[in-house]
Amino acid sequence: MHNDQPLKIAPQLSVSQWFNTDAPITLEQLRGKVVVIEAFQMLCPGCVSHGLPQALQIAGIFPIEKVAVLGLHTVFEHHDAMTPVSLKAFIHEYRLSFPIGVDQAGEANIPKTMAAYQLQGTPSLIIIDQMGQLRAIHFGQVNDIQIGAEIATLLAEK
Amino acid sequence: MHNDQPLKIAPQLSVSQWFNTDAPITLEQLRGKVVVIEAFQMLCPGCVSHGLPQALQIAGIFPIEKVAVLGLHTVFEHHDAMTPVSLKAFIHEYRLSFPIGVDQAGEANIPKTMAAYQLQGTPSLIIIDQMGQLRAIHFGQVNDIQIGAEIATLLAEK
Amino acid sequence: MHNDQPLKIAPQLSVSQWFNTDAPITLEQLRGKVVVIEAFQMLCPGCVSHGLPQALQIAGIFPIEKVAVLGLHTVFEHHDAMTPVSLKAFIHEYRLSFPIGVDQAGEANIPKTMAAYQLQGTPSLIIIDQMGQLRAIHFGQVNDIQIGAEIATLLAEK
Amino acid sequence: MHNDQPLKIAPQLSVSQWFNTDAPITLEQLRGKVVVIEAFQMLCPGCVSHGLPQALQIAGIFPIEKVAVLGLHTVFEHHDAMTPVSLKAFIHEYRLSFPIGVDQAGEANIPKTMAAYQLQGTPSLIIIDQMGQLRAIHFGQVNDIQIGAEIATLLAEK
Repeated sequence: MHNDQPLKIAPQLSVSQWFNTDAPITLEQLRGKVVVIEAFQMLCPGCVSHGLPQALQIAGIFPIEKVAVLGLHTVFEHHDAMTPVSLKAFIHEYRLSFPIGVDQAGEANIPKTMAAYQLQGTPSLIIIDQMGQLRAIHFGQVNDIQIGAEIATLLAEK
Repeated sequence: MHNDQPLKIAPQLSVSQWFNTDAPITLEQLRGKVVVIEAFQMLCPGCVSHGLPQALQIAGIFPIEKVAVLGLHTVFEHHDAMTPVSLKAFIHEYRLSFPIGVDQAGEANIPKTMAAYQLQGTPSLIIIDQMGQLRAIHFGQVNDIQIGAEIATLLAEK
Repeated sequence: MHNDQPLKIAPQLSVSQWFNTDAPITLEQLRGKVVVIEAFQMLCPGCVSHGLPQALQIAGIFPIEKVAVLGLHTVFEHHDAMTPVSLKAFIHEYRLSFPIGVDQAGEANIPKTMAAYQLQGTPSLIIIDQMGQLRAIHFGQVNDIQIGAEIATLLAEK
Repeated sequence: MHNDQPLKIAPQLSVSQWFNTDAPITLEQLRGKVVVIEAFQMLCPGCVSHGLPQALQIAGIFPIEKVAVLGLHTVFEHHDAMTPVSLKAFIHEYRLSFPIGVDQAGEANIPKTMAAYQLQGTPSLIIIDQMGQLRAIHFGQVNDIQIGAEIATLLAEK
């Protein structure tokens, strides 16, 4: 998705539990930074092979003062198989170091943040600008050069 | 491990639950075939990226009448995170088509078959000859050409 | 190389022969564009496996009106093995579609443009801004996200 | 190609120049070994990315007393671009350590050994058994497990 429509403030995150952070994180707190959210499921092969390694790379390349990388566990299938207990071990084994929130249970098996952003599935990479506006949602595998360019373009704004 | 000692019959499998098979599988039933067992944990990154794809390839390349490929879920850490419910979804998502057994809980967090084979960790690739004798245990990543050669060498025996 | 010194206009290209272009190319002509130059040798393994595929990707991702991608064949060893005749076949076989210049023979086996830019070897990725100023020289393998970000940052200038 | 026809002795090699060996090599000398011949062109992308690395792996995995790995430079296009001078630098840069012969010029741009084996193109992997009989010719990319198994199967004969 690339908006040609007027830009809108990104929907807030509905998170039932956070990992890798002492306090809950809100998008409001992150104004002034570009925010990159990797929406994933721990048992989604494309998330494991491409999406999460790319998010880790982004977190390693851009300074944390300028780009905030978050994970969002948007479970919409196999709910019993991907509980927070399993996610915690997954985060440990895959050495995921950025904050990760569990998307809050919603209606019809679709968690709340996933519904608010109208995500098509996982992995989805959400990009929010320094003003808090939703700028892009990429579903599936995204080219590394492309994503580097998109983030840098938003960093150069204002 | 490559045995220079006298060959011994491979220890039996202690499995609490099977997937992808209608009836439990015993090594006795597989006499006459080379048996390849991929011992893995669903949250072990090396198993996901190398061990299991290699086992799938082996199953695709050698005829099922000659080579039996089995998975063995040898959970020795994060037991609550890798339950059979989670494993079932994992098997589905990763399109694992060969029979997979859950290694039976044992002492000191080490499941019974893992202990009997004295596995060092996961992934471990166990190779058993047509007589049922344990011939090799490879811990970690194994070269594809090497593993193809080992299996073919055992197929050529007798 | 990342300049902390005052920026300087990038040295001109000394090219004895061009491929994939009807007329010779000068950096002056490219003012207003970000210019990415892949300095390579056709028999350099790192150029073949990483440098040139990355340059092809850059050319595919950024619009040609904004980013000019050039190849520069900077032969500093095995001169008899990497003649323009061999290079022509190499360009054809590897489907290199951007303009490629042969760096002009210089002193002590180092071609002229390579000497002017003080390149350490191949592959080297040279990045020039819209004003024609030299902004970066990367020797060896460069991360894709990083390079995408660098180019986009220069595109956002002015 | 997998022969169901009666096995035949592999055609002799017609080589105009050898690299990485003090004396010319004939297939007769190699009786008792399995012989693996990587037919390649130095400017063939599939040879560089898959064929030659696979041949290097085969040479590293099987003992030289049992498996002889040879390269054969079967140039059938861009003859001026892939001369022995260029090949020599290529062999050096890509660290090819096994003996490599230049297939002798033949009729209609097809070199003699390539014609005798009726190769379809490059890369082609030729496999000869311990008796000197031609057993397989693989055109294009070959699975590593498969090729390891084929070689081991021939090693187990007699």
